[in-house]
This record gives sequence, structure tokens and C-alpha cells, in this order.
Amino acid sequence: MENIEKILTFIIEIEQLKTVLRKTRPVGLDRYENSAEHSWHVCLSALLLKDYANEPVDILKVIKMMLIHDLGEIDAGDTIIYASETPENKGKEEAGVQRLLELLPVEVAEELMPLWLEFENGDSAEAKYARAIDRVPPLLHNLHGGGHSWQAHNVKAEKVFGLNQRIALGSEALWEVMKRKLEGAVEQGILKS
Amino acid sequence: MENIEKILTFIIEIEQLKTVLRKTRPVGLDRYENSAEHSWHVCLSALLLKDYANEPVDILKVIKMMLIHDLGEIDAGDTIIYASETPENKGKEEAGVQRLLELLPVEVAEELMPLWLEFENGDSAEAKYARAIDRVPPLLHNLHGGGHSWQAHNVKAEKVFGLNQRIALGSEALWEVMKRKLEGAVEQGILKS
Repeated sequence: MENIEKILTFIIEIEQLKTVLRKTRPVGLDRYENSAEHSWHVCLSALLLKDYANEPVDILKVIKMMLIHDLGEIDAGDTIIYASETPENKGKEEAGVQRLLELLPVEVAEELMPLWLEFENGDSAEAKYARAIDRVPPLLHNLHGGGHSWQAHNVKAEKVFGLNQRIALGSEALWEVMKRKLEGAVEQGILKS
Repeated sequence: MENIEKILTFIIEIEQLKTVLRKTRPVGLDRYENSAEHSWHVCLSALLLKDYANEPVDILKVIKMMLIHDLGEIDAGDTIIYASETPENKGKEEAGVQRLLELLPVEVAEELMPLWLEFENGDSAEAKYARAIDRVPPLLHNLHGGGHSWQAHNVKAEKVFGLNQRIALGSEALWEVMKRKLEGAVEQGILKS
């Protein structure tokens, strides 16, 4: 009973992820996306695209990672990816995840913290695939939304191609498709060189 | 490549779940919840509470169900649960799910449609557990939000206890905890007899 109460406290605390606004607007919506709905979107995307991972992946592990991958933003906030992958920001996010997981029964926290770190480190087959999938919806938002976030943050084609190449580490087939779409965006002029 | 394109089309189409507003406000937020962020919240809740299911459950199957369980609302809209479980509404939701799944490669759709129906029917161990978990956040929203949705929709204690007893079908331990909280809400006067 006590453990259930701890888990319910955590479930209430992580409601705050619904208040963290990201830097892109979902296709067809005129508001910014929050990190909770993004988390759902990438979990389902990961499930649907799993046969295109470069290596066979444990999809349950991938989904667990993606369910918790953004929890650090509750304390650290969301930063645009083209500027956010600094040690300082990662440290803030890690401390935030630790604070939240301390609300849980120890054995549950002890399963989740290593998964969060594995995603961040990006070395395992599951982490590479999860990090590839995490990039897909924000690219689709820009591709189908006039490049709104690239333009608002002055992100040029070189940076977009450079950072999103990581999709190929998780799924070469998916990167082929996404790269072609990005090349189309350059031709269209919504992604500037 | 063609299959990846189909999956990306689906990923874009289901963005619309982010526009479906539910009937409760997340704890501490002054706006209504949407069904996409709710879907994330219940997937993670299901993972955390799985050891309290009455029967052992295949948690990957539970999460797959919960990732797609609300997709029917894109076409049918959200209806408060105390009024929504009518054959007419269920038929609309099923047709909506079928329309969406037709965007996907056939073999993917053929895995997901039975899972959606299994959740709706609520007979398997996984479906009973998933349906139990699906009830938890909206109850917490009311319990920590002055019973706002119960009052707005004139839902009385009898109905709340009656419908949410289904939590016990998936997890008796969880229902014990939630029932006690609901009894507290009656004493506090935020849930009326």
C-alpha cells in the first residue's frame, strides 16, 4: 500500500511534464507541443518503425526509455536541441530526474535511472534507435509547418543535416527517407543554406 | 521505403489526438488535458504499477494497448466516461480507429486493431489491468482538483464508485487505495452523495 502511494505521488508530480513547451508546433496545430504529448508520440512512433532499426532492438526497453526520456525537463526546461546538448544542461536534467525518481520505491527507481542514462549516452542499440525516433516528429513539424522552428531559431541546413544524421545510427532506412525530405525543404526554401 | 512513408503519414495524422480535450484538468494546471498527454501518462503509470496487477500481465502488450486506446477519439471526440460507454459511441470510435489504421502497412494494422478491440472488450488480464490504470489519473485530477469534473458534470458518488470498481478487476490493491481516497472525497464534500 505504501509503495502504491509513492507511485501515485510520482504520477501526480510528473503531470508537470504537460507544462513544458517544446520549440515546434504539431502538424496542423497553432500552438507549441508539450513534452508529455511528444513522449506519447515518439513511443508509438518507435513501436511502428521498429522493423527499420539497424540492429534488432528490445522494443519494451526502447519504450521505457522514451516514456521517461524527457522527465529531466520538468526541472531543467526544454531547450532547442541545436543548442541544448551541453554538459551543464545535461547535468541539470539528470539532477531533475533523480529528484523525481526519489519519490518512487527504491527498486523501481533503480530500474529507471540506468535507462534514462542509457538513452542519454546513446551507445546501445536501443538508445541509438530511440534517439533516432526522438528526432522524427520535430522534423515533420518543420517540414509540414513551413520550417517555423528552424526560422525562429535561425537554424541553417548544415546544422539540421549535421545533428539529424544521428537518425542513421539507429535506422539507416529512416534517415534515407528523412534526408530526402530535408533536401526537399532546402529546394523549397523553407530550410536555408 | 514505401512502408516508412505510410508510417510517417500515420504519425502525422495522429497528431490530431493532441487536439482532443478531455473532461479533467491535470493536477496543478488550469487547462483541460488532451488525450495524447493522457496516453503518455497512463502508459508510464501502467509500467510503474504492473506488480500490483491481479494476474501477471505482459506489460509490453498493456503499453501497446494504451498507446492506441484513445485513437478513436480523433473522429469520435472525447465523452465523459460516465455517459460515453454506449454502443453508438463505441461504433464511432471503432470506425475512426479503422480509418487511421488503413494508413499503415497492412501487417502493422493487423497487429494493432485486435489490441484496440481487446482493450475495449476488457476480458483479458492485460485489458483488465489497462482499463484499471486508465481510470487512475482522472480520479487523481478530481481528488486533487476540488472534484471539478464531478461537479461540472453532476456526477454523484454512487456513479463514481460504481464505474471505478472496475479498477478492482485489474488490481485489487490499487482499488483499495483509490477507494479509500474516494471515501475521503465524500467526507470532504468534494464528491456528493
